[in-house]
Amino acid sequence: MSTFGNYFRVTTAGESHGKTVSCIVENCPPGLSLVESDIQPQLNRRRPGQSAISTPRDEKDRVTIGSGCEFGRTLGTPILLTVPNEDQRPHDYGSKTIDLYPRPSHADWTYLEKYGTKASSGGGRSSARETIARVAAGAVAEKWLREAYGVEIVAFVSSVGNIKLFDDRPVTDSDDIDSLSSNPKFLELVDSLTREKVDEFLPVRCPDTTVAKRMEDKIAELRDQHDSTGGTVTCIIRGCPSGLGEPCFDKLEALLAHAIMSIPATKGFEIGSGFRGAEMRGSRHNDPFVSTPADDATPSAGAGIPPSRLQTKTNHSAGIQGGISNGMPIFFRVAFKPPATISQDQTTARYDASGEGVLTAKGRHDPNVAPRAVPIVEAMAALTIADALMAQHARQMGIKIAAARR
Amino acid sequence: MSTFGNYFRVTTAGESHGKTVSCIVENCPPGLSLVESDIQPQLNRRRPGQSAISTPRDEKDRVTIGSGCEFGRTLGTPILLTVPNEDQRPHDYGSKTIDLYPRPSHADWTYLEKYGTKASSGGGRSSARETIARVAAGAVAEKWLREAYGVEIVAFVSSVGNIKLFDDRPVTDSDDIDSLSSNPKFLELVDSLTREKVDEFLPVRCPDTTVAKRMEDKIAELRDQHDSTGGTVTCIIRGCPSGLGEPCFDKLEALLAHAIMSIPATKGFEIGSGFRGAEMRGSRHNDPFVSTPADDATPSAGAGIPPSRLQTKTNHSAGIQGGISNGMPIFFRVAFKPPATISQDQTTARYDASGEGVLTAKGRHDPNVAPRAVPIVEAMAALTIADALMAQHARQMGIKIAAARR
Amino acid sequence: MSTFGNYFRVTTAGESHGKTVSCIVENCPPGLSLVESDIQPQLNRRRPGQSAISTPRDEKDRVTIGSGCEFGRTLGTPILLTVPNEDQRPHDYGSKTIDLYPRPSHADWTYLEKYGTKASSGGGRSSARETIARVAAGAVAEKWLREAYGVEIVAFVSSVGNIKLFDDRPVTDSDDIDSLSSNPKFLELVDSLTREKVDEFLPVRCPDTTVAKRMEDKIAELRDQHDSTGGTVTCIIRGCPSGLGEPCFDKLEALLAHAIMSIPATKGFEIGSGFRGAEMRGSRHNDPFVSTPADDATPSAGAGIPPSRLQTKTNHSAGIQGGISNGMPIFFRVAFKPPATISQDQTTARYDASGEGVLTAKGRHDPNVAPRAVPIVEAMAALTIADALMAQHARQMGIKIAAARR
Amino acid sequence: MSTFGNYFRVTTAGESHGKTVSCIVENCPPGLSLVESDIQPQLNRRRPGQSAISTPRDEKDRVTIGSGCEFGRTLGTPILLTVPNEDQRPHDYGSKTIDLYPRPSHADWTYLEKYGTKASSGGGRSSARETIARVAAGAVAEKWLREAYGVEIVAFVSSVGNIKLFDDRPVTDSDDIDSLSSNPKFLELVDSLTREKVDEFLPVRCPDTTVAKRMEDKIAELRDQHDSTGGTVTCIIRGCPSGLGEPCFDKLEALLAHAIMSIPATKGFEIGSGFRGAEMRGSRHNDPFVSTPADDATPSAGAGIPPSRLQTKTNHSAGIQGGISNGMPIFFRVAFKPPATISQDQTTARYDASGEGVLTAKGRHDPNVAPRAVPIVEAMAALTIADALMAQHARQMGIKIAAARR
Repeated sequence: MSTFGNYFRVTTAGESHGKTVSCIVENCPPGLSLVESDIQPQLNRRRPGQSAISTPRDEKDRVTIGSGCEFGRTLGTPILLTVPNEDQRPHDYGSKTIDLYPRPSHADWTYLEKYGTKASSGGGRSSARETIARVAAGAVAEKWLREAYGVEIVAFVSSVGNIKLFDDRPVTDSDDIDSLSSNPKFLELVDSLTREKVDEFLPVRCPDTTVAKRMEDKIAELRDQHDSTGGTVTCIIRGCPSGLGEPCFDKLEALLAHAIMSIPATKGFEIGSGFRGAEMRGSRHNDPFVSTPADDATPSAGAGIPPSRLQTKTNHSAGIQGGISNGMPIFFRVAFKPPATISQDQTTARYDASGEGVLTAKGRHDPNVAPRAVPIVEAMAALTIADALMAQHARQMGIKIAAARR
Repeated sequence: MSTFGNYFRVTTAGESHGKTVSCIVENCPPGLSLVESDIQPQLNRRRPGQSAISTPRDEKDRVTIGSGCEFGRTLGTPILLTVPNEDQRPHDYGSKTIDLYPRPSHADWTYLEKYGTKASSGGGRSSARETIARVAAGAVAEKWLREAYGVEIVAFVSSVGNIKLFDDRPVTDSDDIDSLSSNPKFLELVDSLTREKVDEFLPVRCPDTTVAKRMEDKIAELRDQHDSTGGTVTCIIRGCPSGLGEPCFDKLEALLAHAIMSIPATKGFEIGSGFRGAEMRGSRHNDPFVSTPADDATPSAGAGIPPSRLQTKTNHSAGIQGGISNGMPIFFRVAFKPPATISQDQTTARYDASGEGVLTAKGRHDPNVAPRAVPIVEAMAALTIADALMAQHARQMGIKIAAARR
Repeated sequence: MSTFGNYFRVTTAGESHGKTVSCIVENCPPGLSLVESDIQPQLNRRRPGQSAISTPRDEKDRVTIGSGCEFGRTLGTPILLTVPNEDQRPHDYGSKTIDLYPRPSHADWTYLEKYGTKASSGGGRSSARETIARVAAGAVAEKWLREAYGVEIVAFVSSVGNIKLFDDRPVTDSDDIDSLSSNPKFLELVDSLTREKVDEFLPVRCPDTTVAKRMEDKIAELRDQHDSTGGTVTCIIRGCPSGLGEPCFDKLEALLAHAIMSIPATKGFEIGSGFRGAEMRGSRHNDPFVSTPADDATPSAGAGIPPSRLQTKTNHSAGIQGGISNGMPIFFRVAFKPPATISQDQTTARYDASGEGVLTAKGRHDPNVAPRAVPIVEAMAALTIADALMAQHARQMGIKIAAARR
Repeated sequence: MSTFGNYFRVTTAGESHGKTVSCIVENCPPGLSLVESDIQPQLNRRRPGQSAISTPRDEKDRVTIGSGCEFGRTLGTPILLTVPNEDQRPHDYGSKTIDLYPRPSHADWTYLEKYGTKASSGGGRSSARETIARVAAGAVAEKWLREAYGVEIVAFVSSVGNIKLFDDRPVTDSDDIDSLSSNPKFLELVDSLTREKVDEFLPVRCPDTTVAKRMEDKIAELRDQHDSTGGTVTCIIRGCPSGLGEPCFDKLEALLAHAIMSIPATKGFEIGSGFRGAEMRGSRHNDPFVSTPADDATPSAGAGIPPSRLQTKTNHSAGIQGGISNGMPIFFRVAFKPPATISQDQTTARYDASGEGVLTAKGRHDPNVAPRAVPIVEAMAALTIADALMAQHARQMGIKIAAARR
């Protein structure tokens, strides 16, 4: 489906060569202050080499609000967001071999298998332009989350190829294994990292001067080799109210996994202690509860969902226990595969299965997508939390009213 | 939600101390041969130390078909499956400290935050008994997938703590990194592993005599230390038709991630090359196409979805490209955290935030859940593929008819 | 689908000859007092000749709560309700002709067309027993609506054949036409009718001694003629909070129409002024607003949704304007066709289209279903309002919180 | 929700004073020939005094396909359709009293109750412009239905005020009552009426010269009286395949009722024999089966769903039995209330409940909406059938494949 969410719901449309990429956001609460300039910064960050705080160099990927707002406020009705495509002519990429060969590890072949028809752009909706609609919708969700609950969502690049911000190999072969969720340097980022800080490390968006430099060098090296590499993005959600996530199939981590693994090129998702957590002892992995300090109310204090009376001393659970948020920070990590488009000739089979041949390379391509994926990951996280919040509210007021009348 | 799927849809109910755990399976195609003994084997495998091929020792967790079948065939109407709880009395675990302290890394606290009420069993639907309904529904889905398409789904334990069937550390620090999807030993399992073979390695379900022995020893060691550890389960889906998965939010890997990460205690999901794939070069990661050999028709040949004319030489994509299946085997890996229930006293906070104290340990507990998770992972995979198949069929016949009339 | 509702959601299962008729109610707010005896009365009223206030003659159609409740309170988790079938043996009605001929205006033929298989009971889920699950689920919804909001739902029989409680023919041929929504006698019922009052008029449930007697006579006459007739049921919803109904496809009247027209044997639905309203002048049909008297707070005053500051002087809109409730009473009318099962021989075609013949009659049958439809209509109304309330709450708290932080 | 359908799914957006009215159509089968001129005729028919066969006088309400099509064919991806608003400036209707008084029987008040905010256009999405998106999406659905299955959908005006094409009063007071479904003149229309024929009777779209003239006179008379009146629209669906409609809550008549009652200003829906059917005898109402003549194959013969082997001699069921289509023509009738906007002053209450006053009339208004509702009713019927068809296909191919492998 091109629809995400049951309550706070977005439907997207648009492929590379149509007139527009667009989305309709349903059920955004009314009365929210919302204009195009609330959305444009994340669209700018999604474009290559851009930062939310820098002035965009040009007017590309400009979003328009087509409905659902009046005098700068949401009406509660569906919000249409459109971004025009610059190159709207359907074509075949001006290449002979691309007509004959489905590109390896692209969606050209599977779209044909699914739909029995071939978009001129190859994989139709698998184009990276599709993610524009996610980012636009996500910006609306996070405006609401921030204004109403003080939720903050920040993602950053945690690895490019085998250059990693945090070493993920166990220090020992003993059983006293720890995961990222025990790393003090990481936990400091969990508490304090901002988007502005992340964008200081452009173009790679890895918040460490030394590692960021190594990542830039690695990307340059692969570009020179006409090759590509993957990377990981880590995302932090602060101030998420407790009680979100719907047992048993819509646990909060399941909804996040669905959202994140729907981003093109993702190959893995881990939350909290993640895969390394599977190697830990239970006695080390369990997060003991402590009382919430009186002066440590979450940003949403006083609002609809009061801050949790309890916190956890450690946070291997990454703010989710039994599929439900507990108010502690949520963090997860995403793996992106190396881009399939490389500037090398590739031997592969013809569409008609009549034999193999060489798909010729054309032009220069981005050898790594992780930095641009940062705002996309943030958008999908925001859409997930907004939807889970509305699900919880649907139940919650009913509880309150029933209690009040008893 | 307690509902999974849009087409092939299951709704589950039941916590530890109610009368039953149950589910309703909607939209199962009619005319499918289905009796209780089609479902019971997987329920037996879910119980400790059981195998599908062995005779269950007793009559526990017996499933009953309450509707939707007649004379051993499905009617196309909703199928009610129920399994009685043996201990139906709501109680408080007979412990004083468990009334005062939410158990660390359990769902006791978050269920209270979400619902404002406390089930006597603590985390309500977070109980492991909830998974009985998944396994029962999954057995119906896979009966259909096997009979109609020849799909085979097999999961196994790939690690227990830091004992791993396949080493996941890169062999070199060079860029020529490979992932599990390049490992010949693993690829052989992808092609040939059966559930019968997996169950030969009970109690750990890891298909390697040496490694299985080390895992058993590790589990025994942790039991003696009153501790627990996590593990990973790897799942293989063979014979999945091409064309499944709905762009853009319901990519097949996103649906699988959602399904799998909704299983209790999961912390990570990776598909194909996974996290290691993020370190690979694109030229190494891309899967070149080759023509499908004439004699290598997939098991569903002749059925509704013909076998794909093309295959891939390598399979880092794990059978999914652009979110859509290509007919090659699908495989993914799941991380399970160490069980939170351990036989040690734990210091933690009181429900009422009035201070910390010691939650006392009681009884002996299973120090590892991976072997029992095997049929649960298989069930969720089956439900996902069945739902995606029906989504594709909804569209597909429309295409065929339109084409026939042109 | 066998699922109704997006928020307060019920999934039903069961046909005549399976073990049980059942349903799972999802998302019922936690903390609601709920035991079997809250549900049983409406099931009793659904049975022939029964009243909620009379002691049921026997133990038929006894409901069991299988999960989702503990110590007499809902947990917020899915509630399984089951009612056993008394005659669980699949059979062919012991008739020869019924094997050869699909019964006219039954679902025998269309179920075969849809599913390609034939339940021994003929139309599978089209059996009247299916409605047991609706009534059980509806009783849960209305318990919540009554306790938390003071909503009252009362239905009654408004016609049997051409015996009508209210004449629906226009008094004049002029343009000054009025509808039922102008009838003082009807408006009095809208304000005051109770289920207890309705059941005083058993067996027909038409709250007028004279008309009820004529209806009884009509039914007796048709029984003697081995024939049947239809009827209408009118339903009143009092105390419904304002603001319910989701523009634009899920207007409250559209949701009610969906719910009601899913009841077996319904042929029409009209709300407020209805079909007669289409003949009225706009100046007569418009409902002018008046201020709500200070002492006339709705029963839900003080609860989550405050009473509307405005009321309408007339109520041709039946409490819904622009698809959204305005706090005034809602009322609608439903047409039920004559039961297709009659005690006469009928000439019809064979299943195999090999020619016509005579389907022989067997036994005695109920010549009118309207009185038993009363609790079914109430149940579907309750499920609709409960779902719409949760949809509104999902949005509402978000509005409040955003406003509080501005 | 602003979303309709589960499989063939449309999401709409746009109110009177935003930039555009728009919709996204999801899951339209790929390969369908589709350009703007397939959609524009129904949008033209929706405008006052227009016909599909006449050239539109101007370029108003022009639709643009923004995505999902290439080279005049659908890609299977979401189709964005947009229609610009001509007057995009939010304003307050330039009236003083309209700022103070919610208009009687409009949605001004209920939108404020629901959303806590007021669109300058009053009722936000309750504007008639919202229906543009329905008509555009419906035109796509019916293109597919017509091309792939030969389905024909034709609606017409059956009454304006108390001027009726068919008298709906019973001819006798005996029990031998008949409904519209027995009327030979109506049944002839069921078999033969076309949209071209209906548009010959513009401006009222009632296919009878004498009655149409009386309707025109009635509308003129009401206009002179600064008043309005309602009307009914009857819709016929020919060539609908058998087997559509999902037990038990999504019976085909329930889905149609939902779809139709979501159209602004509707007050009633009846199908087949309708409310009059509730007065008939069962022996007269039952539709006996007959074999389908060999030469009378439905237009979809040879396509995915073969024509039903049986037909019915009469058709009081209107092509639906047990909630499932049987292949016979479907027909239903819709009541529209008189437009609430009238050119008279009206006494009503202030928004702030501070007292009553006079809402002054402004300009001239359309005293009857039935003729323009015709393409809207057709659109909602088409969307309903398209969605039901895909639901059935989802199940159907699974049945076929399972059967083939047995």
